[in-house]
Amino acid sequence: MTSPSYDTISFLSDYGRTDEFVGVVHSVVRQLAPGTVVIDVTHDVPAHDVRAGGLALARSAQYLAPGVVLAVVDPGVGSARRAVAIEVGDGESVFIGPDNGLLAPAVAMVGGATRAVELTNVAYQLGAPGPTFAGRDVFAPAAAHLCAGVALLDLGVEVDTAGLMPATIPITRVEEDVLYAEVLWTDRYGNLQLNVDPAEVEAHGDRIELRFGGKVRTGVRHHTYAEVPTGEIGLVVDSYGLISIAVDRASAAEELRLDTGDEVALVALPDDGPQPGRSTPVTLREKHR
Amino acid sequence: MTSPSYDTISFLSDYGRTDEFVGVVHSVVRQLAPGTVVIDVTHDVPAHDVRAGGLALARSAQYLAPGVVLAVVDPGVGSARRAVAIEVGDGESVFIGPDNGLLAPAVAMVGGATRAVELTNVAYQLGAPGPTFAGRDVFAPAAAHLCAGVALLDLGVEVDTAGLMPATIPITRVEEDVLYAEVLWTDRYGNLQLNVDPAEVEAHGDRIELRFGGKVRTGVRHHTYAEVPTGEIGLVVDSYGLISIAVDRASAAEELRLDTGDEVALVALPDDGPQPGRSTPVTLREKHR
Amino acid sequence: MTSPSYDTISFLSDYGRTDEFVGVVHSVVRQLAPGTVVIDVTHDVPAHDVRAGGLALARSAQYLAPGVVLAVVDPGVGSARRAVAIEVGDGESVFIGPDNGLLAPAVAMVGGATRAVELTNVAYQLGAPGPTFAGRDVFAPAAAHLCAGVALLDLGVEVDTAGLMPATIPITRVEEDVLYAEVLWTDRYGNLQLNVDPAEVEAHGDRIELRFGGKVRTGVRHHTYAEVPTGEIGLVVDSYGLISIAVDRASAAEELRLDTGDEVALVALPDDGPQPGRSTPVTLREKHR
Repeated sequence: MTSPSYDTISFLSDYGRTDEFVGVVHSVVRQLAPGTVVIDVTHDVPAHDVRAGGLALARSAQYLAPGVVLAVVDPGVGSARRAVAIEVGDGESVFIGPDNGLLAPAVAMVGGATRAVELTNVAYQLGAPGPTFAGRDVFAPAAAHLCAGVALLDLGVEVDTAGLMPATIPITRVEEDVLYAEVLWTDRYGNLQLNVDPAEVEAHGDRIELRFGGKVRTGVRHHTYAEVPTGEIGLVVDSYGLISIAVDRASAAEELRLDTGDEVALVALPDDGPQPGRSTPVTLREKHR
Repeated sequence: MTSPSYDTISFLSDYGRTDEFVGVVHSVVRQLAPGTVVIDVTHDVPAHDVRAGGLALARSAQYLAPGVVLAVVDPGVGSARRAVAIEVGDGESVFIGPDNGLLAPAVAMVGGATRAVELTNVAYQLGAPGPTFAGRDVFAPAAAHLCAGVALLDLGVEVDTAGLMPATIPITRVEEDVLYAEVLWTDRYGNLQLNVDPAEVEAHGDRIELRFGGKVRTGVRHHTYAEVPTGEIGLVVDSYGLISIAVDRASAAEELRLDTGDEVALVALPDDGPQPGRSTPVTLREKHR
Repeated sequence: MTSPSYDTISFLSDYGRTDEFVGVVHSVVRQLAPGTVVIDVTHDVPAHDVRAGGLALARSAQYLAPGVVLAVVDPGVGSARRAVAIEVGDGESVFIGPDNGLLAPAVAMVGGATRAVELTNVAYQLGAPGPTFAGRDVFAPAAAHLCAGVALLDLGVEVDTAGLMPATIPITRVEEDVLYAEVLWTDRYGNLQLNVDPAEVEAHGDRIELRFGGKVRTGVRHHTYAEVPTGEIGLVVDSYGLISIAVDRASAAEELRLDTGDEVALVALPDDGPQPGRSTPVTLREKHR
């Protein structure tokens, strides 16, 4: 009968830090659930970029403390999109945010939804002069009330988890021995995370041809970023277990003019032993065009 | 006889996040008042912009947890400007910062000052190698000591609340049926908050002529940002209860080339029923010039 | 026999705030040492800039709460560089991070290392899909386990403190009565901190000739930034006790086109009484070239 007791809210948004939005949400939680710790995952998701927010949340998901996850990237605020609370792990955690696909990748990552509620109970919301700051008026109060002991089902009407908005995460495809991948994420250092599991390129060996933006280059598998020699394009299994493109202590994004959302094709190179010259762009262009 | 017990410091500044200033202030508080929670409202107020900081604090004020509010935008640090602690609500909260108008809008918003003290007691300050970091050496220690139980009047000499520096918030004016307003704030999403209460344009109807920068456009009232159709200029009551100019999932500031501090004139349109063509710029220019 | 009890982690990195790295580190600590307070010193150290991170940490050091200091600017992650925990003050605090010189200036500032351990014990690390996020997988767990009561020597093998990587902080030099200094840090407001102690220019008087980038200007000593008159170049002892170049409510860095790492030569001016015209650039150029 008793609700699980949550004492941590992990908070992600596209609010930025320039305005006071993040601080106001913290303040709302502080008053409704004083003992709760709020951890800022990030607030610099590009404005209105639901996919980027969903991916950042998914990368974080397995490391977040059990409790409430509050995520707000909400271009449809005030429209018909639902505000929801999604329980995972039979109550281990609850994800709160707009039902626009933002929460879906992380929810899937931690085992999927076990229950969901639409946040319809205004008793657990703040009255507001305008309807545009749902983070402050709807989502944060719901998160805080859960931490203060309110039961999930008291926040609103239960909804079918099968009807929640799914994520739109790009998957790789293989055509004629070419693996078509996409840059999922460009991190702070300019490393380019691909949507490629190491298992997908296990048969490719240590050197893989990369095609993007009309160019052909050779990527070389390395264990860490620091091992990538100057002038070479490294392929490293990153800290999330995906293949990442990196260069030596510089931004691969800038050097290769690649960015989030761009396509990269991976092709196995013929296995004819080490060919040092091959990693230079000129040699590559002549050989493969 | 006992002082109120404060356990939250809400902290706003123009320190930015690139340097370690914010972290050092947190560290000072952590040592002087270990159990206190410090909530960062924002630290990205433009450097030395007292008015912008004052407005951000005022927008936040009613949502902040009771306790101490620490605000530092202080271009006159080390000069004759006073360092003050301003009590509101007969002790519900205390605002600490420079007496340069920064605190005034928020103090007014929550009911006005009930007492004020100039922070003259060096026993509650840090000795410092230089006089330039008052946030660390004067303001943060005062905030922390209040939370640790020091009485307001022990922080320095009481001063007349009537002598505190007032705010300089622009107010609208009406001349020949034209309401002259100003952009108070451009938020992260490019929405433009005007210093206009909905009551001021109640008689204007749903469509209002907007004049700015030599242009004439039509703004249309909507309930939420999401309801503003593509290509239209929306007028939405924002989450602070003021009229805000918005466009569909883009930055109104960029599209209209308007920014904080710019003037916008609002004029009632003749009430002759819906005129779809009117919201296009070309039609408008012909009609109104 | 009992270990010191730490309840604060002061955290500095070059992770930025755009990605979720900082939030994930907080989340790891939250789970391994739930009662610990994590204070963000700054995370906007320029990517891979070990020297800038080391200086920021050194500026903060004397103000940080006793406990654990977690610092990560780690271009060599995954390479042979060691991960270390450095005890100072016989256990008052422990600095955790890569052994690449990042920690050295702060450790020296607070009295030097009393013991050091290489973080070799994988029992106190997270298993990870890739080796590239040592902050999450190695450093944060070590910091959290210390706070949870694990003894320093249980984190790995003790190493000789004399073998730790030293800092490379530039020192001034004097040649033919010219004091050659360097801009150590350009702060948020554009003030330029030099590596010059006030004692080094005590004999120079209130007006000091400054030579940089082919220009010759006069700097004038003032007590605070606010006292620097418009049009003048001020020399102020900053809040860390070093000589700083400042101009009136604007960025000295922008006005003088100086930045971190640039050289500035200081020369005593002949003591011939006040010469108001001298502080104007035109007069100066004629006089000194």
